[in-house]
Amino acid sequence: MPSLQHTFLKRRQSLASKLRSPALIFAGHAPPRNFPANTYPFRASSHFLYLVGMSIEGAAILVHPDGSSTLFVPTPSPDDELWHGPSPSLETISSLLGIEAQPFEGLKGSFRKEAIASLPVHDEKTRLIQQELIGRIVSASSLSPIDEALADAIISLRLHHDEAAIAEVRHAASITKQAHLEAMRSTRVGRGAWEIRATLLALFAHNHCTPAYEPIVTPKGEILHARDSNHILEEGDLLLIDAGAESPTGWASDVTRTIPVSGRFSSTQRAVYELVLEAQKGAISALRPGVRFRDVHLLASRILAEGLLELGILRNGGPETLIEEGALALFFPHGLGHLLGLDVHDMEDLGDRAGYAPGRFRSTHPSLRYLRLDRDLEAGMVVTIEPGFYHSKGWLAHPQNAPLVHRFVNVDILNRFSDVRGIRIEDDLLITQDGAECLTDSIPKEVEDIEKVIGGTC
Amino acid sequence: MPSLQHTFLKRRQSLASKLRSPALIFAGHAPPRNFPANTYPFRASSHFLYLVGMSIEGAAILVHPDGSSTLFVPTPSPDDELWHGPSPSLETISSLLGIEAQPFEGLKGSFRKEAIASLPVHDEKTRLIQQELIGRIVSASSLSPIDEALADAIISLRLHHDEAAIAEVRHAASITKQAHLEAMRSTRVGRGAWEIRATLLALFAHNHCTPAYEPIVTPKGEILHARDSNHILEEGDLLLIDAGAESPTGWASDVTRTIPVSGRFSSTQRAVYELVLEAQKGAISALRPGVRFRDVHLLASRILAEGLLELGILRNGGPETLIEEGALALFFPHGLGHLLGLDVHDMEDLGDRAGYAPGRFRSTHPSLRYLRLDRDLEAGMVVTIEPGFYHSKGWLAHPQNAPLVHRFVNVDILNRFSDVRGIRIEDDLLITQDGAECLTDSIPKEVEDIEKVIGGTC
Repeated sequence: MPSLQHTFLKRRQSLASKLRSPALIFAGHAPPRNFPANTYPFRASSHFLYLVGMSIEGAAILVHPDGSSTLFVPTPSPDDELWHGPSPSLETISSLLGIEAQPFEGLKGSFRKEAIASLPVHDEKTRLIQQELIGRIVSASSLSPIDEALADAIISLRLHHDEAAIAEVRHAASITKQAHLEAMRSTRVGRGAWEIRATLLALFAHNHCTPAYEPIVTPKGEILHARDSNHILEEGDLLLIDAGAESPTGWASDVTRTIPVSGRFSSTQRAVYELVLEAQKGAISALRPGVRFRDVHLLASRILAEGLLELGILRNGGPETLIEEGALALFFPHGLGHLLGLDVHDMEDLGDRAGYAPGRFRSTHPSLRYLRLDRDLEAGMVVTIEPGFYHSKGWLAHPQNAPLVHRFVNVDILNRFSDVRGIRIEDDLLITQDGAECLTDSIPKEVEDIEKVIGGTC
Repeated sequence: MPSLQHTFLKRRQSLASKLRSPALIFAGHAPPRNFPANTYPFRASSHFLYLVGMSIEGAAILVHPDGSSTLFVPTPSPDDELWHGPSPSLETISSLLGIEAQPFEGLKGSFRKEAIASLPVHDEKTRLIQQELIGRIVSASSLSPIDEALADAIISLRLHHDEAAIAEVRHAASITKQAHLEAMRSTRVGRGAWEIRATLLALFAHNHCTPAYEPIVTPKGEILHARDSNHILEEGDLLLIDAGAESPTGWASDVTRTIPVSGRFSSTQRAVYELVLEAQKGAISALRPGVRFRDVHLLASRILAEGLLELGILRNGGPETLIEEGALALFFPHGLGHLLGLDVHDMEDLGDRAGYAPGRFRSTHPSLRYLRLDRDLEAGMVVTIEPGFYHSKGWLAHPQNAPLVHRFVNVDILNRFSDVRGIRIEDDLLITQDGAECLTDSIPKEVEDIEKVIGGTC
């Protein structure tokens, strides 16, 4: 494996070779929580982490088309040592990272504003600095041509993970696996969902990781992004756990499991669970370079539609009709998956620019509007595959959905599935030369394997 | 105890009675972490929590001088139920909180821009909304007269905690106690400081709490705000743990303990520890209404200076001289404490306006420049008392400090204290009619009590 210095040098040089103007990429600042001195934990921007490999608050890297780079680092105040400990010198940073390091103040005037490209930043402090330095606001929804070129250059790099990136994603996945196993073992009737969540968070922290996103741990799995975990787990509940670790250098994983709190799936839960699993496996086996991700999404949708027809929940049409008319989206409203890398939705700070191939745009169709990825797959991409089934009475009763429900749903049969609120099964897949490698499938997902682990010591 | 509805109504009416113009106070929005859809956990602004008691992202409350209030709540999008679950209706919110609730859109045009007061907000999204609604930027460093009046009104309320507030601070303190005890029991040679940190965080999460600030868990206690915990605990280390829970409704606690990893203080560690404890106890016993907090800070400073003279670390002057000349600040550079409430540094979003009485300003003196509180104490205030001793070789060697060290420090003797890197002891004190009640002192801090708990099951 090449040295890390070499990896980052190569990334910067690859970026440089695609540039026609210098690029200025900011690490960012920690945003305040309730007052300026009490911030959320700092997390450098993913583009910065990708090129530098080290989280340095307030820094920025200038990459020149000739392949040279300069890292601009804030000068510590005299009291910084007292409050935050010794800051590494510019020489130390330089030799550690293999980049020329300069004081941040030197950035001003070191380039022509009209000729510098930059990327959207995420906090107000950095935005003001960026705006002053380059003389404009950089926003994902209205990139200037020079910023568009930089965005496209960095997307073309970050779409295909190099060896070091894959090692990081594997590491995040391995911690995520431990956390899910621990969560499954701690799950039992009478526990609080928040306790299972605390267990996951502690396991991440024990392993120097943070959550890559706020974990979802809920018996109300029909809420796609349920924020709260304030429920006591009851006999008959399914617990949906969507949680992934972020490695210490910022790489994400993203895994969902749905498990029966009592240790046994009911027959209705099992029927739907196995259908979702079948759709997931069908989608995974379709992954290979050249395949359009939207087609994989539609394949999984067909499997789900067929299964729901067979169960009698959907009616009055074949799978294609049910998808086209929007009936399947009543139960599977979101996309099959998304890019994964330094961000859990990789490069979503650039809007759909990374997830959608040039010339492709988000559809408004009920089965496609939440699809975050519509590219032809290529080796080195990492994607999630996460079909689901959601039984949300409020959503089904919504005026926009009532006519569809009336026409396509057998409510009597659906009501027999009242103990199935939400099921999602999600893994992380590395696209290889001839298929895909699942990075997370050693986390139990077969019915028998899950039933063995719940509340147990297996 | 009065009902919670009554408590919040009373707070709003008390605020109203101090107002001459209507006040618009925003809850705020969760800031993005690495892309817009991946935010940090939402935490409503403290002023909003104080008046409303419920965390509602994107909401704002309008308080009129006549005592009436209206809560403006964002209207959920049609898909909100699908992604985030059912939103309570305006009627539900209204009857739950006892405030009239209206859709957020109704706010526009419901007041005259020139006649509305507001307070600084903490995230960019809210700042843009605020700016559009009221036609100006509200910044703590340059408040307009109308905003100053509102800030002073809310400070005068929040300085004195009502019964409900004290109950919340006590609850946060009780969870903090459990967490510190658990951390002490898990501390032993060979463990990672990050593991102790993970233990604290898990205990908070198990109890529906978050950390009120990023916990400091470090054997490098000489760094006042050490951010990382990536150290294996070694024989002879002192572990400094500065961690406090935030209750589910947003109230903070803030406690520091310093404990010997091996279970026994060395004689040098014990000598300095007992000095810091003596300074803390001396300060605590001086707390009562009417006492100027700066004087308590100086009292603790004198006790520390006397002790360091006695140990032979300081020399060439009496305690007063050592403080005046800045020599004590080499070892105790920060303030004795600060206000505590909904914020860990309560109302620090308003700068020094809350911590400093009108007409008093931050001094530049080495012993005073980091003092966050200079008010005369009043019953109902909650303050921290947190003296410390820090032995930072880098800081002592700093050019601004070298002459002081040369003149006032006996380096030979100091070097005998090389196993004392940083000691801080911090508790939360409620000022009562005739003294102060320590809300957190059941967390062990006597040498013998700590030694019993470390790595044990006591």
